[in-house]
Amino acid sequence: MANSKYEYVKSFEVVDKILPNTWIVVRIDGRNFHRFSDENEFDKPNDVQALNLMNSCAVAVVEEFTDIIFSYGVSDEYSFVFKRTSQFYERRNSKILSTTVSLFTAYYVKKWKEFFPQKDMRLTPSFDGRVVILPSNVNLSHYLAWRQVDCHVNNQYNTCFWMLVLNKGKTKKEAQDILKGTETQDKNELLFQQFDINYSNLPAIFRKGSCVFKDKVEEIVKHTESGDPVKRLRKKVVVSHCDVIEDRFWKDHPWILDG
Amino acid sequence: MANSKYEYVKSFEVVDKILPNTWIVVRIDGRNFHRFSDENEFDKPNDVQALNLMNSCAVAVVEEFTDIIFSYGVSDEYSFVFKRTSQFYERRNSKILSTTVSLFTAYYVKKWKEFFPQKDMRLTPSFDGRVVILPSNVNLSHYLAWRQVDCHVNNQYNTCFWMLVLNKGKTKKEAQDILKGTETQDKNELLFQQFDINYSNLPAIFRKGSCVFKDKVEEIVKHTESGDPVKRLRKKVVVSHCDVIEDRFWKDHPWILDG
Amino acid sequence: MANSKYEYVKSFEVVDKILPNTWIVVRIDGRNFHRFSDENEFDKPNDVQALNLMNSCAVAVVEEFTDIIFSYGVSDEYSFVFKRTSQFYERRNSKILSTTVSLFTAYYVKKWKEFFPQKDMRLTPSFDGRVVILPSNVNLSHYLAWRQVDCHVNNQYNTCFWMLVLNKGKTKKEAQDILKGTETQDKNELLFQQFDINYSNLPAIFRKGSCVFKDKVEEIVKHTESGDPVKRLRKKVVVSHCDVIEDRFWKDHPWILDG
Amino acid sequence: MANSKYEYVKSFEVVDKILPNTWIVVRIDGRNFHRFSDENEFDKPNDVQALNLMNSCAVAVVEEFTDIIFSYGVSDEYSFVFKRTSQFYERRNSKILSTTVSLFTAYYVKKWKEFFPQKDMRLTPSFDGRVVILPSNVNLSHYLAWRQVDCHVNNQYNTCFWMLVLNKGKTKKEAQDILKGTETQDKNELLFQQFDINYSNLPAIFRKGSCVFKDKVEEIVKHTESGDPVKRLRKKVVVSHCDVIEDRFWKDHPWILDG
Repeated sequence: MANSKYEYVKSFEVVDKILPNTWIVVRIDGRNFHRFSDENEFDKPNDVQALNLMNSCAVAVVEEFTDIIFSYGVSDEYSFVFKRTSQFYERRNSKILSTTVSLFTAYYVKKWKEFFPQKDMRLTPSFDGRVVILPSNVNLSHYLAWRQVDCHVNNQYNTCFWMLVLNKGKTKKEAQDILKGTETQDKNELLFQQFDINYSNLPAIFRKGSCVFKDKVEEIVKHTESGDPVKRLRKKVVVSHCDVIEDRFWKDHPWILDG
Repeated sequence: MANSKYEYVKSFEVVDKILPNTWIVVRIDGRNFHRFSDENEFDKPNDVQALNLMNSCAVAVVEEFTDIIFSYGVSDEYSFVFKRTSQFYERRNSKILSTTVSLFTAYYVKKWKEFFPQKDMRLTPSFDGRVVILPSNVNLSHYLAWRQVDCHVNNQYNTCFWMLVLNKGKTKKEAQDILKGTETQDKNELLFQQFDINYSNLPAIFRKGSCVFKDKVEEIVKHTESGDPVKRLRKKVVVSHCDVIEDRFWKDHPWILDG
Repeated sequence: MANSKYEYVKSFEVVDKILPNTWIVVRIDGRNFHRFSDENEFDKPNDVQALNLMNSCAVAVVEEFTDIIFSYGVSDEYSFVFKRTSQFYERRNSKILSTTVSLFTAYYVKKWKEFFPQKDMRLTPSFDGRVVILPSNVNLSHYLAWRQVDCHVNNQYNTCFWMLVLNKGKTKKEAQDILKGTETQDKNELLFQQFDINYSNLPAIFRKGSCVFKDKVEEIVKHTESGDPVKRLRKKVVVSHCDVIEDRFWKDHPWILDG
Repeated sequence: MANSKYEYVKSFEVVDKILPNTWIVVRIDGRNFHRFSDENEFDKPNDVQALNLMNSCAVAVVEEFTDIIFSYGVSDEYSFVFKRTSQFYERRNSKILSTTVSLFTAYYVKKWKEFFPQKDMRLTPSFDGRVVILPSNVNLSHYLAWRQVDCHVNNQYNTCFWMLVLNKGKTKKEAQDILKGTETQDKNELLFQQFDINYSNLPAIFRKGSCVFKDKVEEIVKHTESGDPVKRLRKKVVVSHCDVIEDRFWKDHPWILDG
C-alpha cells in the first residue's frame, strides 16, 4: 500500500515565497468582534481590559517569533512587522500568516481569564489575517502611520458618539446625525463644551493605540563594593503608546528599522 | 488630520482570489506538536482524548463555516474542504486560510478542559495552515485518499515502534533499526507474533483517521396517535472513521461532491 | 571574479507554476491595433487578408506548440488552448505566456508580405497577452462561447456602423446614434431594409471567427492494384469557421477535450 | 443573444498587479537560439551584427516604452528596467511582460534585413520572458552586475573555446577538456600564449555587453552671431558598453536610479 498513487496531489500545493528584502506585515483583525464585544459586555468606546488582553497576546507573539521587530495594535486589530531579512519559514506566505494568527488566537483564549477573571468568555473569538509586503522603510513607517491615524480618527468619533449615547441619552441615530460632517476641531469642541473633556488628556492607549517592540531598557546588573549600581542596556519587549507618525520615534529607536 | 497622506499604502495589499469552480482545501497542522504532546504527556502512539479534542474542534468549525462539506483529520492535522461553488469571503485566500486556522485554534484552547479535565494545558498550541486548490472531483478524492494512506502508513509504523519501546524495553534507536525496510505485511506479522495484536482490530480512529461531515441522519420527529414513530432525514454533522480511499464512501454519500 | 556575490538576486525570481489538471488559455490581443489598422488601411469592418494573416500565424503557432489543442481567433485577438495535462515549460506561467505571444508576433511580421504583397507594413505591430486558467471542460467551452458571442455582437454592430458610414454618408457620430439601443433583430432588419444584406449570408469568417485545431482529415494514401483509393484518417491543422457555442461541435470532435 | 450567460468566465481572469514602489525588470531570452544562430550562420563566439540587431531592437523598445530607464543586453538576452514608480499598464504583470517581449520580437524580425542584408532569415525567432521584481536600488544594481559578470564569464570561456576549435583544430570535446577547471587568469594566459590575444583589448561589446538608456548628450542648438556654438544638454537613448558593476557608472548617471 504505497502512497505513490495519490501522492501526485502534492503537486497542487503552491510555493508562495514572499519577495526577499521586503518588510512583511501580518495584520490580524477580530472576526465578528462587534458581536463578540457586545456579548462579553466590553466597555464603550474602549474597554481597557480588552485592550490589555490584546497587548498581552501581542507581547507573547513578539517574544515567541523573534523576527518580529515591531507591532502595532488598535481596537481588535494588530499588525506584526517581520524584519526585512527574515527567513522565518523560508518566507512562505501561508506559513507566516497562519502561524501568526493561530498563535495570537491561542493566547487570546488562554489569557482571557487573566484579564477577565469575573467573566466567562461568551462565543469563540477568531481573527482573520492578511500579509502586506512593503519594499522600503518609508513605506513601512507610512503603513504604521496609516494605522495610527485610523486609530485617532476612529477613537475621536467613538468617544463623541458614546458620550452622546451614554451620557446625554441620545439614540445611536441621533448621535450619528450630530457627528455627521464634523471635523477634528468640532469634535474636540463638542467633548470640551458638553462633557468637559480635554481630548488630549484621555489615556494614550485609547488615542495612540499600542506599540509592542524590543526596546533598550537600562537595568541594574549588580552593585559595586561601594554600593554603586552597575547598569547595562538590555533589549526587552515593551508596550508603549507612543506616536509613530512623527519621525522622532524612529530616530530614537534606530535599531528597529536598521535591524 | 485626514488619512489621505498615508492611505496609499492600501495599494500594497494584494487581491488573492482563488480560481472559481475549484475545491478549496485548508489543511492545518500542529506547530511543534511533537514537543506539545510530550509536555502534555499524550499517550503513545495515539492519545484518544487528544484525537477527540481535534475532532470536536473540527465539528465546531464545520458547523460554523457552512461551506465546508467535508473534513478529514489524522494526528495533529486536519483538512477542511470548501465546496467548489463557495463564495466564502469572496474566495479570498488569506481570509479563508486565516479564519479557518484561527477558529480551530480558538476551539482547541477553549475545549481543552472538556477533554483533559485533570490536566492544565502546558505550552500554547498553535497550527500552521495552507490552502490547496483542486480542480476536479477525482483530484479531491485522491487528495483525501493521500491523507488516509498517510494515516495508515504512519499509524502502523508508530504502533510497532511504541510497542517495541514501551513493551519490549527497546531504545528508540533499536526500534528504528528493527523496523527499517519492513513492509506492511512484516509489521502486521511483528504485531501479531510479538504482541498478539491483530492490527485490523485496533480502533478505527487510529487506523482510518476521522471524517467530519454533514451526513443524512434519520431522526424521530414525533409519534402518531397510535404510538408509531414518525421519522425524517436530517443533515447533521457527524464524526466517522470510514474508508475514503474506496469509491463506496462517495457513492453512499453523493451529496458531498455534488453539492 | 566569481559570480557568487551577485547571484543572490536569482532568489528574487518567482516560481509561477500553473495549477495542474486545468486548461491553460493564452489570449493575445493586438496592441494599439485601432491605429495599426488605420495606418495600414485595413478594410472596414473586416479586412479578410488581415484575418487570413492572423489565422496563418495561429496555424504556425499550433503546429509548433503541439500541446495547443484548439485556438480561436476574432479580429486582432487569438486564444490558444493548451491541453489540461500539458507539461509545456513545466506549466510555468511566464514562459508559456511570453513564448506564445512572441512566436505569434514573429510570424505576424514575417508573414506580412505573404498576405499584403503590395503594402509595406507601417508601424511595428505588437500583442499583449494574458493567461486564463479554466478548471473544467464546461468552463472551457463556455470561455470559447463567450469569445464567439463577442465576435457576433461586435461584427453585427460594426457591419451596420460601417455600412451607414461608408454607403450612406453618415458621420461616425450619426451612425452611433442610429445604432444606440438596437437589438440583434433591429440590426438584421436595418441591414436588410437599407442595404439588402441578409446578415446570415455574410462570410462565416466575419460572423463566426476562426477555429484552428487538429482535425481528422481523410486522405488517400495509395491506390490498390485495381485502382481503388486507400484512405486513412490523419490529424492535420485546419482553419474552420464553425460554431463552437453549440454542443454539436464538441460532440463531432471529441478528441479535442478528451485529449 | 446577450453575452451574459458566458461572461461569467471573465471571473477566471486574475489580477496580477506588481507590488508598488519596486523596480520591474523584464528579461527576455532567445528561445532555441543555439539552433537559430547555427541556421543563420552567426559568427562564433560573437556575431557583431547579431548583437547590433539586438541593440537596435532594445533602442526601439526603450524609445517606445518611456518608463524603461535602463536596459542591459548580452548575447541573446536583454533586461529592461522599468522605473519603480511606473504605472505602465497599471503595473499588471502579464501586460508588461507580454507587450515587452512582443514588441522586441516584432522589431527583431522587422529589422533583420537592416543588419543582414545578404541573409534571408532562416527559422522564426522567438523570445521567452520573465518579470523580476527588485525592492531596492542596491538589489537592482546587483541584478545588473550579476548579468554583466555572467557576460564576462561566458565570453571569456567562449572566446577560448572557439579559438581552440576554429584556430587550433580541436574538437569541441577536446576544447571543453582543456578549459575544464581553468580560472580567469588561466584563460587570459591561454589566449595570450597561444593566440597572442590580450583579452582586455577585445571589443567592449563582447566583454561588457550593451547598455541602452537615456543619457544626457550635449548638442549644438545654434550658433551665435560671432559663430560660437550654443550647446544644451538633451536626453537621448544611447548604446554604451560601460561597466555597470563599478559604482562609478551610477554616480555619473544619478538620474537613472533617482528617476
